[in-house]
Amino acid sequence: PPRGRGALSSSKLFVGSFLLLTLAGTVGLKVIPGLYQEQSLTWHEAAFTATSAVCVTGLIVVDTATYFTWEGQAFLLLLIQLGGLGMLTLTSMVITALGGRPSLRAESATATVRPAMPYIPPRKLIISVVKFTILFEAIGAILLYAIWSPQMGWSEAIWPAVFHSVSAFCNAGFSTNSNSLVDFQHSPATLLAISFLVVTGGLGFVTMEEFSERLWRKKRARRLSVHTSLVIVTTIVLLLGGWFLFALFEWRGCMASMPLVDKLSNSLFMSVTSRTAGFNSIDYGAASDSSNFLTILLMMIGGSPGSTAGGMKTTTFALLGLVAWSRLRSRPTVTFADRSIPEETIQHSVGLTVIYTAIVMIGILLITSIGDLLGDHGTLLPRMFEVVSAFNTVGLSMGLTDTLSPISRWILIGLMFVGRTGPLAVAAALVVRRAGNTTYRLAYEDVNVG
Amino acid sequence: PPRGRGALSSSKLFVGSFLLLTLAGTVGLKVIPGLYQEQSLTWHEAAFTATSAVCVTGLIVVDTATYFTWEGQAFLLLLIQLGGLGMLTLTSMVITALGGRPSLRAESATATVRPAMPYIPPRKLIISVVKFTILFEAIGAILLYAIWSPQMGWSEAIWPAVFHSVSAFCNAGFSTNSNSLVDFQHSPATLLAISFLVVTGGLGFVTMEEFSERLWRKKRARRLSVHTSLVIVTTIVLLLGGWFLFALFEWRGCMASMPLVDKLSNSLFMSVTSRTAGFNSIDYGAASDSSNFLTILLMMIGGSPGSTAGGMKTTTFALLGLVAWSRLRSRPTVTFADRSIPEETIQHSVGLTVIYTAIVMIGILLITSIGDLLGDHGTLLPRMFEVVSAFNTVGLSMGLTDTLSPISRWILIGLMFVGRTGPLAVAAALVVRRAGNTTYRLAYEDVNVG
Ligand SMILES: [K+]
Ligand SMILES: [K+]
Repeated sequence: PPRGRGALSSSKLFVGSFLLLTLAGTVGLKVIPGLYQEQSLTWHEAAFTATSAVCVTGLIVVDTATYFTWEGQAFLLLLIQLGGLGMLTLTSMVITALGGRPSLRAESATATVRPAMPYIPPRKLIISVVKFTILFEAIGAILLYAIWSPQMGWSEAIWPAVFHSVSAFCNAGFSTNSNSLVDFQHSPATLLAISFLVVTGGLGFVTMEEFSERLWRKKRARRLSVHTSLVIVTTIVLLLGGWFLFALFEWRGCMASMPLVDKLSNSLFMSVTSRTAGFNSIDYGAASDSSNFLTILLMMIGGSPGSTAGGMKTTTFALLGLVAWSRLRSRPTVTFADRSIPEETIQHSVGLTVIYTAIVMIGILLITSIGDLLGDHGTLLPRMFEVVSAFNTVGLSMGLTDTLSPISRWILIGLMFVGRTGPLAVAAALVVRRAGNTTYRLAYEDVNVG
Repeated sequence: PPRGRGALSSSKLFVGSFLLLTLAGTVGLKVIPGLYQEQSLTWHEAAFTATSAVCVTGLIVVDTATYFTWEGQAFLLLLIQLGGLGMLTLTSMVITALGGRPSLRAESATATVRPAMPYIPPRKLIISVVKFTILFEAIGAILLYAIWSPQMGWSEAIWPAVFHSVSAFCNAGFSTNSNSLVDFQHSPATLLAISFLVVTGGLGFVTMEEFSERLWRKKRARRLSVHTSLVIVTTIVLLLGGWFLFALFEWRGCMASMPLVDKLSNSLFMSVTSRTAGFNSIDYGAASDSSNFLTILLMMIGGSPGSTAGGMKTTTFALLGLVAWSRLRSRPTVTFADRSIPEETIQHSVGLTVIYTAIVMIGILLITSIGDLLGDHGTLLPRMFEVVSAFNTVGLSMGLTDTLSPISRWILIGLMFVGRTGPLAVAAALVVRRAGNTTYRLAYEDVNVG
């Protein structure tokens, strides 16, 4: 199909299905009986909770552990699983559908662009995604059950293990404990098992598919794609860099009293969780400004495309770095691993970053000014943290979500939804009639930039 | 001359002359007798003050009003004037030298790129810049003298009027008052006169030259260049937007007790000063978080290219917005005022923004973590504010500069210098031997971005 129409209709499908799921979740939380221990949620709390679950964010206005019955938690988990799976299948479908897209740029006439991924038929793709998800969530649940059952008891450990495995693989960050994973800060095994789920869930289906192809099918050794190389390198650099810095910042800070192994596992966990998962093993309200600022940066970067992760994505971040690097060396083309990156992709990632940054900045300005004008006595950092966490669907909080006014919560709901489905998809879905492709070009004129 | 070599040698000239001027200023502050009321500056204070003056930043570690003698203030003003003029002439020379540059991109083979500005010979250009500078600074000094002499006295008003006029036109932000312009917050005439100087100084020589051409020489009505249109539109939008938001944020905040006219003039002044000037008529330490965050955003954007202003520049900001807009509309080319913007320029502005953002983020992380690790009890906002102010050579402060440790001050010195001369110029100047232009291109391969 031509790219324009394909992109448009997939955007509508994509945004529409998430909107429908969110609305169904909200209504479900209001009308299904037996979800709550005591009083039920108000409309805006229901909308917030449903959006947070469907968009696998993890910000909460009521405590998942104590406010809901088992049935209520199960309903949330269903929303999380549907949101996560929807994300995986739909983005993967969009990516593979665009795999062989005809480039709009002049270069493609002379140079052949190898697509990031070969085309896979939708039916095969959905089956493949569901298979992956079930496999990893089952492994995760078994691991967590093995770790927790000795202490929790053989039957009591089942539900938390299942819940946390699904929530972690979907990068949702919801927990059946009131303080997320703070109770497990001295259990490195728990932190590692959750980290494993979070990282695999955040790698993205495209990358996982390529790995599994190499591992099992032993096809004619195809060169690792630039996409996958970029994802792997960026993920490793960010994980290790974050690990080192969080350890440095909190060694004598909020981790001062921990033994060495816990210091290491908790700082690693901070690095893993901040890019999108949203579980916390320490209290971010008690962490240093350095850690919280670094967390904000990592939240903005997020996970990899075609995964359950939010943020502007590892590849976008890496491409921006490569653009800067090629600028510093006065090179006209952006290259990585002996390949040129198409101009159009660079433009796309730049446009995306600008839009992301603009939305986050406007969000911070809105939440801060509304807070100031309504006379909340919050400071900038927790508000910044909250906005970035919502928009990048991370779910970490410095403890502000409870105290926000309803209007600020509605803004967060909007941020979560747009952050999850993507500003470009939302914009494309909102366009009723698309202007015809302009085949002419206006005359060029230069501008001085800094 | 071929672009590569021209860019390289002009970078060396540019960075080298600023480095030399800064070193001369530092040594001058240490060895020239009679500059101080009492004790003289330590080396790192001298380096900080000289860098701040030469880079027309305006951050201070000692009070300009009380620490220096008249001779000391005059020496600072000399450094400011040389730094400001150097900036104006050198950047204008670079811009006009690159005016007719051969584009590296394939498009230029088929489309003609109209340069942002016609070539002007260096000698003519320098004379023109000096003429402009003297003209505006003289008008400013006379205006300020007329406003201040009735209250200050006929002879006492001369030096402050001259000092503030030069400092404002150069966007330096140094003041002979201990509290900058807080004493003049109830004098709208002062704020408007300073605003006029700041805005004209921040428009950039290219824009001013084009205006004067249209005003005086009445040449064959050449269409206003895209560059100038972009500068004008962006400047007006930012000024008005900032004015409105600052008024909104501080109406019942730190301006609550002011009469209407002062509310309006002070919020306008906040909008004018934050993009690069660095004078303050209110205490930023007492302003709301909303205002301070907005100030940070405006500081990052800065003034226009080829001016005395810092920041990533209005045109860069506008181009980024246009890239995002063209992305949202799925257009391949970035257009403004019926003209296409060359791909290379877009790439350049993107590279620049990424490098700027990266440096600022690393700067904030450094200052914050050093502060935290050394046990300063600062919070994130004032540190963020300080880093952004230094790197974008604004000079506003929430009152942190005094309390910073020497190592943090050295970091600010580096930020001011790199922010003023530009990261690209510094990088180009540091390159000893430039790799030959690659004429081949690597094969294209696509990457998925968010
Ligand atoms: K999350
Ligand atoms: K300044």
